[in-house]
Amino acid sequence: MYCGEVTSEQVGKQVTLSGWVQKRRDLGGMIFVDLRDREGIIQVVFNAEKSKEAFVIAETLRSEFVVEITGKVVKRQDGTVNNDLPTGEIEIEAITISILNKSKTPPFDIQDTVEVSDDIRLKYRYLDLRRNKMKENMIMRHKVKKVFSDFLDSNGFLDIETPYLTKSTPEGARDYLVPSRVHEGKFFALPQSPQLFKQLLMGAGIDRYYQIVRCFRDEDLRGDRQPEFTQVDIETSFIDEKEIQDLMEKLLVEVVKETKGMEISRPFPRISYDEAVNRYGSDKPDTRFELELIELGDIVTNSDFKVFTSTIENGGVVKGLNVKGVAEEFSRKNIDALGEVASIYGAKGLAWMKVTEEGFSGPIAKFFNDKPIAQELMSRMSTEAGDLLLFVADKPKVVFDALGALRIHLGKKLNLIDESKLAFLWVDEWPLLEYDEEAERYSAAHHPFTMPLEKDLGKLESDPENVYANAYDIVLNGYEIGGGSIRIHQRELQEKMLKALGFSKEEAVNQFGFLLDALEYGFPPHGGIAFGLDRLVMILANEKNIREVIAFPKNGKSIDPLTNAPSVVSDNQLKELALKTTAKTDKE
Amino acid sequence: MYCGEVTSEQVGKQVTLSGWVQKRRDLGGMIFVDLRDREGIIQVVFNAEKSKEAFVIAETLRSEFVVEITGKVVKRQDGTVNNDLPTGEIEIEAITISILNKSKTPPFDIQDTVEVSDDIRLKYRYLDLRRNKMKENMIMRHKVKKVFSDFLDSNGFLDIETPYLTKSTPEGARDYLVPSRVHEGKFFALPQSPQLFKQLLMGAGIDRYYQIVRCFRDEDLRGDRQPEFTQVDIETSFIDEKEIQDLMEKLLVEVVKETKGMEISRPFPRISYDEAVNRYGSDKPDTRFELELIELGDIVTNSDFKVFTSTIENGGVVKGLNVKGVAEEFSRKNIDALGEVASIYGAKGLAWMKVTEEGFSGPIAKFFNDKPIAQELMSRMSTEAGDLLLFVADKPKVVFDALGALRIHLGKKLNLIDESKLAFLWVDEWPLLEYDEEAERYSAAHHPFTMPLEKDLGKLESDPENVYANAYDIVLNGYEIGGGSIRIHQRELQEKMLKALGFSKEEAVNQFGFLLDALEYGFPPHGGIAFGLDRLVMILANEKNIREVIAFPKNGKSIDPLTNAPSVVSDNQLKELALKTTAKTDKE
Repeated sequence: MYCGEVTSEQVGKQVTLSGWVQKRRDLGGMIFVDLRDREGIIQVVFNAEKSKEAFVIAETLRSEFVVEITGKVVKRQDGTVNNDLPTGEIEIEAITISILNKSKTPPFDIQDTVEVSDDIRLKYRYLDLRRNKMKENMIMRHKVKKVFSDFLDSNGFLDIETPYLTKSTPEGARDYLVPSRVHEGKFFALPQSPQLFKQLLMGAGIDRYYQIVRCFRDEDLRGDRQPEFTQVDIETSFIDEKEIQDLMEKLLVEVVKETKGMEISRPFPRISYDEAVNRYGSDKPDTRFELELIELGDIVTNSDFKVFTSTIENGGVVKGLNVKGVAEEFSRKNIDALGEVASIYGAKGLAWMKVTEEGFSGPIAKFFNDKPIAQELMSRMSTEAGDLLLFVADKPKVVFDALGALRIHLGKKLNLIDESKLAFLWVDEWPLLEYDEEAERYSAAHHPFTMPLEKDLGKLESDPENVYANAYDIVLNGYEIGGGSIRIHQRELQEKMLKALGFSKEEAVNQFGFLLDALEYGFPPHGGIAFGLDRLVMILANEKNIREVIAFPKNGKSIDPLTNAPSVVSDNQLKELALKTTAKTDKE
Repeated sequence: MYCGEVTSEQVGKQVTLSGWVQKRRDLGGMIFVDLRDREGIIQVVFNAEKSKEAFVIAETLRSEFVVEITGKVVKRQDGTVNNDLPTGEIEIEAITISILNKSKTPPFDIQDTVEVSDDIRLKYRYLDLRRNKMKENMIMRHKVKKVFSDFLDSNGFLDIETPYLTKSTPEGARDYLVPSRVHEGKFFALPQSPQLFKQLLMGAGIDRYYQIVRCFRDEDLRGDRQPEFTQVDIETSFIDEKEIQDLMEKLLVEVVKETKGMEISRPFPRISYDEAVNRYGSDKPDTRFELELIELGDIVTNSDFKVFTSTIENGGVVKGLNVKGVAEEFSRKNIDALGEVASIYGAKGLAWMKVTEEGFSGPIAKFFNDKPIAQELMSRMSTEAGDLLLFVADKPKVVFDALGALRIHLGKKLNLIDESKLAFLWVDEWPLLEYDEEAERYSAAHHPFTMPLEKDLGKLESDPENVYANAYDIVLNGYEIGGGSIRIHQRELQEKMLKALGFSKEEAVNQFGFLLDALEYGFPPHGGIAFGLDRLVMILANEKNIREVIAFPKNGKSIDPLTNAPSVVSDNQLKELALKTTAKTDKE
């Protein structure tokens, strides 16, 4: 039995509990100990009169000692009930106690809030995980995984494992390599995702596959990125994107219900990539609040405001936000701060006006207070007195990014976001390719195996930039939690796609020959999706960083402060792998 | 709906099925197609009269084409029922058909038995997995995993993921290394098992943990070893080895029931390591048959047979097998062949006698036909006329290994093994240490974190060779399918253990400092077990090689013939990792 599971029903019974000393208080001939385990905390009382032996041992207890206690469950006396604890109405009258292990004073208290650096938390992760919030995060993660596998199992999906030691491919992010000892000079790569293997499983007739699988990307470090992350990988044959999405919605509804007790309604809203970017300035919009981007080019092109008109003449766009009812709160200084947010995304300036009973006010108001244009603006932007209007005029990408970022910034700052909401959204019809300025060639926006939309098939060679893909992301509260597509299942089209990506025939065969061959042996139409488990659990656990839902994450420098990995290895290990390091690192 | 799921209940209904053409037969105006998917095969009939259009398409079908067929389920005519097929009483009268993809002629037929090399099977694994037996193996593996996680979940175990990019440790097998790009000259290692992390989770108060996790060992290659393998990893706090084993027995009973429909009785038999070796010549005995090793030293020491008596004088042992009732089958030549088996394990000779109505016969019979010794031998070995007696006299290890191997050899050769049986067995009380002749020091027989038996604690420094461990293996049909132990949970004892293993104080802290530190912060008593999933599924699927239950295994040379991993990588990739290869491999 767990401490947290003892209830009034056990009153009068004898129980044996094991756990950690959270706190000890001495009160005359009584010692009170808060005993903690995975499921909660309960108060244990040692009475010098009633059990002398246990009392003497209890006198030596300190925080984090591990003990086993046998005692009687009793109701607490009136006035001593602790309503902060689920077990606060009862306590244990200790009969015997044995100390299973002692503890030094921990480097931080085992409490919900700790005031220590992330690296100290990670170095002593085994203590950090004793904290209630972290334990709840681990339990949440466990539950989410269980719902995923139960749902997928009961819908006929087979859990099949794919290799971790596999082949390096130049597409996508950087691979982690694993030198082969048996085949000197050759390397395995850790999978960035099991994409090709899951497609081959479709070729193998396993028409419903899933796997909860670790993936690896040696990317440059960013706040919420980890070198290894967990993916729920799913693939199906013979069904189209709508059927896949339908099934995945049911799955997510189930996950939310089982972990949060919340009902999410279906079908989830759906918008195209182009619409998402135009309305929210983001391909993963947070739809828990409105504050949408408003297209203004057709109106402001008729104004005398040169900044706007010349932008439009040069192929740029002008869009605005109407921040309702905040004109008074926002001083010039506050608005300048918003301009700084916009400038991070390359906006050269942030224009603004306030709406008053009389019309617009502010430095550029004079260009827009004329009747027809004022009317049109007010109508398009649904203004009322007291609104703050923000405008960015620039190249489309800059406008989307800057206003999209401002939208999120304001959403948080003005508490527009209902934190209790879970807003799912499908974003589909993605561009198939994107131009990689650095490599001077196209790369796959999703991955090179994504099926173009049927209507665009003819444009793959003639106009690749305007080909859209049968690809879809699932977005939750502004995070991409999953992405998928229908895949190419015919060799000829796959070859065309690789050609569009700049592969020579020889390179294509060298890298993906096994897939191209497989496509010739009765490959079924197929598609799938992959969910980012860490991020999904992070959102469900109300956390802001995926490190909080990973038991042993790396820190921001890709180091594990607990074990000190990565580390220097012996010369003999390198020699066996036929490797030499050119690094000038001191031996540790 | 799957092909294999159509039953007589659907007769008269219209169904749409997708799958692969297994076979096409033309018969006048009729074409018969066996259509195959994940769940089975059904016969589809195309009638030129009834649906001309479908018939014309059907004429172009070849093996492994992927098609979608709509048709009516009908009862087959009398005399055409196929009792080999679960769907053999019905067939589909095709109305429409569309070819979803064509297929070249596959390199081997998609049938239960294939006569091609393993490398061809692995190169075309997507075709190999279409075969019924392989699909069933994948489904078996899926089911086993599901039963494991359902059982563990419902018993309060939390599924927690541990890192794949972790620290290299010199203990145990050779690590696979992963060079760090960010920290040049440093390396992660892939886990050989999550041993230390699962112990730290116990330190974290997660008192019941499990994970189905990939593990990696860069060992020299052997028949049924893979560089990566899957482990069901389990750890608990506050309960002893008997409680752990009890829970694991319930789990295994459940696995067998759900996957094979067989009832296994509990508790499983249990013997100590010493007893296993003495009775079966193996630490993982196959107890599906008897043919136990019989101790004879005390009897034969009184004989005049110098080979036996001098062996005993020199500290060796003499043991025998009684192979019941086969004396007549075994010619001198056959017995010589048995001697060759024994010699592989270092036995210098295999002595033998046959039992006749008159006494012993054979070259050494004269030494044993005297009354008292003959009587004793016959009684100890429970002989009857017609038995063949085999003897090995040598150092204990040679006798155990040679007779253990002969026991298995004869068990198979003489069909003594009931292949339908699943014989579970606990082997416990293992030696804590074993002497590593090469390294000239002790190494851990289980691992360095294993708790010595309490009665032997005092001997850890004075007589380490005779310390036994609280370690236990679970054996099934002669395979070790899992192993575990109670772990050390106190720093002082852990330090003593590392010292016994030859670690200096500095080395101990350098390698395992984080564990030693953790043990000082209220570490609970704990223990666990890990199951080898591949091997367990292999046995349940009646396979002889774990490759048959792994979707994409490496071949015997540690190569994946499908993707050709491992492979040469670009100079740039190595440069980014600050590495140079000293191998003289040609670029591919």
